[in-house]
Amino acid sequence: MNMHSEAITIATHGRGTTEITSEVQRAVAASGIVVGLCNVFIHHTSASLIVCENADPSVRSDLERFAAKLVPDGDPLFEHIDEGVDDMPAHVRSILTQTSLALPIDEGRCSLGTWQGVFLWEHRHTAHRRKITLTLLGR
Amino acid sequence: MNMHSEAITIATHGRGTTEITSEVQRAVAASGIVVGLCNVFIHHTSASLIVCENADPSVRSDLERFAAKLVPDGDPLFEHIDEGVDDMPAHVRSILTQTSLALPIDEGRCSLGTWQGVFLWEHRHTAHRRKITLTLLGR
Amino acid sequence: MNMHSEAITIATHGRGTTEITSEVQRAVAASGIVVGLCNVFIHHTSASLIVCENADPSVRSDLERFAAKLVPDGDPLFEHIDEGVDDMPAHVRSILTQTSLALPIDEGRCSLGTWQGVFLWEHRHTAHRRKITLTLLGR
Repeated sequence: MNMHSEAITIATHGRGTTEITSEVQRAVAASGIVVGLCNVFIHHTSASLIVCENADPSVRSDLERFAAKLVPDGDPLFEHIDEGVDDMPAHVRSILTQTSLALPIDEGRCSLGTWQGVFLWEHRHTAHRRKITLTLLGR
Repeated sequence: MNMHSEAITIATHGRGTTEITSEVQRAVAASGIVVGLCNVFIHHTSASLIVCENADPSVRSDLERFAAKLVPDGDPLFEHIDEGVDDMPAHVRSILTQTSLALPIDEGRCSLGTWQGVFLWEHRHTAHRRKITLTLLGR
Repeated sequence: MNMHSEAITIATHGRGTTEITSEVQRAVAASGIVVGLCNVFIHHTSASLIVCENADPSVRSDLERFAAKLVPDGDPLFEHIDEGVDDMPAHVRSILTQTSLALPIDEGRCSLGTWQGVFLWEHRHTAHRRKITLTLLGR
């Protein structure tokens, strides 16, 4: 059994999704692991991870509108607004999606479905630098 | 440390949940792994995984009604409707649930709680064949 | 590669969040694993796991109010009410959050972000004893 661990930093441009599939695939290739698992972990509570359809951009714009309606910015329900109207909604959106994802590795690549991409979802309106740790286990 | 990886295919009958606990337990038994982890990954963006109460079927019919209300088919919010009124809701429902689940293995079995079952949740109205990869690590 | 597995029990005091970061960090330290993964799994379908901001308690009270509004106790939508008005909402809240979380281990500790804590979220109104299995893999 081998293991490979590395941290990557992704620059976001404010609220929205950034595909990180190629960064994940590059780490898998560099590790030399052929079969196993690749765990993706984001070190933040106002940005999260999703596996999402990556062919039609309207999927992600629809998703953004759905999230904005489900967890509205400035909802008077929220007391935690120190950093603005998007502060608490960012935490809720993160909790309803993923902080960690474990993807199978097969034939030396993350074995994703035809339409699956891995995305970092920034929930704050301003740009951030987000840290992700990739942990690969296998042989 | 040992590792075992296999892909299984589950036929769904349209929207609804299919319990896959026995398929997972069979793979754990076949692997010979006694203690460790079993990762379950679904290679799709319109079907997902959940761990759910598996004793009373009304839990899953209630869950289905809740999801239909939270993410209504045909919601005019959605532009991505190429494959029908259930297309984008299927993606949203997948994102709000799980694409991967990691279950502990103990005493040669997935160590689930008394009432826990592992379910594939098909979010499209039509029947599909869904690919799942099981990755087992342990000793 | 080394592996360490242990079960812990957390006493809850009814609906609400209980931080378990120190229990997780203690298990990582005891394992001697320096780099790898720590999987956290909860053996229940009416309590779940989240990674959440752990500095300002209002984040968790806001989250509680959000969940109470999204999945109201006593919603006539639900048939599964054998154990009370919070029975089915507890299952839904669990399914919308996490049953398993995989956290990276680095430098002999769970490598969490500055504001990240690991929380058990009890969804039932009454106190419970909840079983969690920690599975650590690494070297």
